Amino acid sequence: MTIKNFKKEIPKYKWADFTCPGFVAHGLSCGIKKSGMPDLAVILSEKPAKVAGVFTTNRVKAASVLNDKKRLRRKLHSGVVVNSGNANACTGEQGIADDAAFAAFAEEALNLKKGDLFTASTGVIGVPLPIKKIEKGVKELAGALTPAGFGRAAKAMMTTDAFQKAVVVEGRVGGRDITILGVAKGAGMIRPDMATMLAFFCTDANINKIALQDALRVAVVRSFNSICVDNDMSTNDTVLAMANGVAGGREIALDDSALMVFTKLLTDAAIKLAKMIVRDGEGATRLVEITVSGAKSDIEAMRAARGVAESMLVKTAIFGGDPNWGRVISAIGMSGVVMDPNLFDLSINGVKVASKGLDTGMEKDAAKAMNSPEVALSINLRAGEGAATFWTTDLSYEYIKINSEYRT
Amino acid sequence: MTIKNFKKEIPKYKWADFTCPGFVAHGLSCGIKKSGMPDLAVILSEKPAKVAGVFTTNRVKAASVLNDKKRLRRKLHSGVVVNSGNANACTGEQGIADDAAFAAFAEEALNLKKGDLFTASTGVIGVPLPIKKIEKGVKELAGALTPAGFGRAAKAMMTTDAFQKAVVVEGRVGGRDITILGVAKGAGMIRPDMATMLAFFCTDANINKIALQDALRVAVVRSFNSICVDNDMSTNDTVLAMANGVAGGREIALDDSALMVFTKLLTDAAIKLAKMIVRDGEGATRLVEITVSGAKSDIEAMRAARGVAESMLVKTAIFGGDPNWGRVISAIGMSGVVMDPNLFDLSINGVKVASKGLDTGMEKDAAKAMNSPEVALSINLRAGEGAATFWTTDLSYEYIKINSEYRT
Repeated sequence: MTIKNFKKEIPKYKWADFTCPGFVAHGLSCGIKKSGMPDLAVILSEKPAKVAGVFTTNRVKAASVLNDKKRLRRKLHSGVVVNSGNANACTGEQGIADDAAFAAFAEEALNLKKGDLFTASTGVIGVPLPIKKIEKGVKELAGALTPAGFGRAAKAMMTTDAFQKAVVVEGRVGGRDITILGVAKGAGMIRPDMATMLAFFCTDANINKIALQDALRVAVVRSFNSICVDNDMSTNDTVLAMANGVAGGREIALDDSALMVFTKLLTDAAIKLAKMIVRDGEGATRLVEITVSGAKSDIEAMRAARGVAESMLVKTAIFGGDPNWGRVISAIGMSGVVMDPNLFDLSINGVKVASKGLDTGMEKDAAKAMNSPEVALSINLRAGEGAATFWTTDLSYEYIKINSEYRT
Repeated sequence: MTIKNFKKEIPKYKWADFTCPGFVAHGLSCGIKKSGMPDLAVILSEKPAKVAGVFTTNRVKAASVLNDKKRLRRKLHSGVVVNSGNANACTGEQGIADDAAFAAFAEEALNLKKGDLFTASTGVIGVPLPIKKIEKGVKELAGALTPAGFGRAAKAMMTTDAFQKAVVVEGRVGGRDITILGVAKGAGMIRPDMATMLAFFCTDANINKIALQDALRVAVVRSFNSICVDNDMSTNDTVLAMANGVAGGREIALDDSALMVFTKLLTDAAIKLAKMIVRDGEGATRLVEITVSGAKSDIEAMRAARGVAESMLVKTAIFGGDPNWGRVISAIGMSGVVMDPNLFDLSINGVKVASKGLDTGMEKDAAKAMNSPEVALSINLRAGEGAATFWTTDLSYEYIKINSEYRT
């Protein structure tokens, strides 16, 4: 039994189209990565922007996350400076000071005020940030920011990512045409040690800070919190949304019906980036979409879908093309959600393999249907109205290879 | 980088020594397994015994588990009949009836009363139990039970296990010499579909049913609930302890200080079996022992240790011989226990790689020390007095191979 690696569908971007009014970006190499690959990026709003943020809940947090959470208390910011190759996590007091210097050097180079910038880091844990290299790098960056620079910025955020992850969505919100541009990195919690999904959204929508935070929270739950590659949570996970209001119109607040439209757009953008992270998952040969319906609530559906997505037995079965539904329902049972083992239906790529809890004898058809780079598991628990979708990878030899090789 | 599979240390049993006063056992093949390997076993107390039980908490439970939970309400029982090769899970009402017939046939063959026997099943999910084959098999078993038959019984419980798992401990409890004999099966939640750890303890101790249940609960937490191979919980997990009182003396009750001694003996026996299950883990090349100390409580220590044991990134790093402590502490941070990232110490096979949260520069020494079939991770959180130990395997190519091959 061998499964060929499915070709990673590397998106072909026309970077000139990846712009958002009032935002500029750039990325370059400042020498953090031994490989010489880009490792430093800035995303900047030309006008002060409202910023919302969601961060890792890991008890071990990188210095950038600890500092960003404090920075978020201010009303307006200008952007974010990002490095890859060094996580600046488990680096103690020195790490906190280095992160402050990271922001200060960039603010100085960009003629900003103290506190205008967020930071984000991704890379090796436990190694001090090479702050001198960064100081040089941000000076060079400052002169090179352009509206079409998001491709370079996305590149400079990558660690083991195989490709840049970016998305643009447009829509009409509160009577104005608005744009949401997102860039992300992540491919599992990644070799060498690492760490991290990062995502940054820029929008010209005119939205207040509280409403933006609300929209981002919802979008993250249905996107980055609904994917997994290897179940590990990074010390550095950071998602920021920056809104500069350049589109004009009334300022969208929590009680504005336009917020729903904006949230939907932001969620769509976030799901697209999240699925790109899964497609780029370490060792992935298949993209797996798990939909649980008929759960007692959306929360229960999410818990059940996550249970399936995190099961190594389910993921190895999918790698092997085995329509092994017993493993799927056992994972749901283990998740502890309300369910009756005599009521569920279970389909694999449209083939119903279990009906009212019993085998349908359709295993061979299901095996055929699974011969695809995308596998959809659909489970109806018949316990209520809750539904959720979760995305993951299969689990392959390649994953073991990537994650067991010594870091040299 | 290649790691040779460490030789599974297959215990060399002298089965004549594996006896417990008043208990008999046997195992044979009745044709459930296509391979013709033994698949049916009985363990019997010649005198009615008090029985305690602990079962899977998976919401999807096998018929044997559902029925055993009811059977447990009676005061006295005679033993357990076990089949391997078929889990009798996800088999609906028919499965419940088949399990009742399974017990009834065995009770009849053994001249027991209805309700005297527990059942346990392990094997493929979703396939009806071949009850006719079992009916024949139990008749044959009935005439062959012997005090030294536990080796055959343990053999007939195996699925993908590489070896039988058995233990005998002896001690002095309540002024009497007592024996605890345990047998178990399990090697992950296993190919083809599978399912399950089972463990059965026989003891001649004179102990009442409530005290026995209490002792078993404690023993299971520190043993079978402190191991993982692939994080999946079976639909069939069953642990029974049977005490026939043949050793005599006073009957040990909940308030008897002898219960602590008995619990310690039972826990020792259970830990020995649990570690055998890990050593026999699918694809395992190393046994990993994770000790968390200085946690706020024992519960928190257990949660932290389990977090490390379940991390695929930790397990692949250990497979690769990589002393990647960032992954270990990130897994603990993710577990959500109370900790200060600036206080912990972390050692790998005795080499301190992190001290007060910072790298010690001892990585090369740790890599050398890891060149061993056993890897001990020791983490002191300096947050309290709680401690726990958890055992797991590394995660290897072989695991993927075993679990991705199509079930034919």
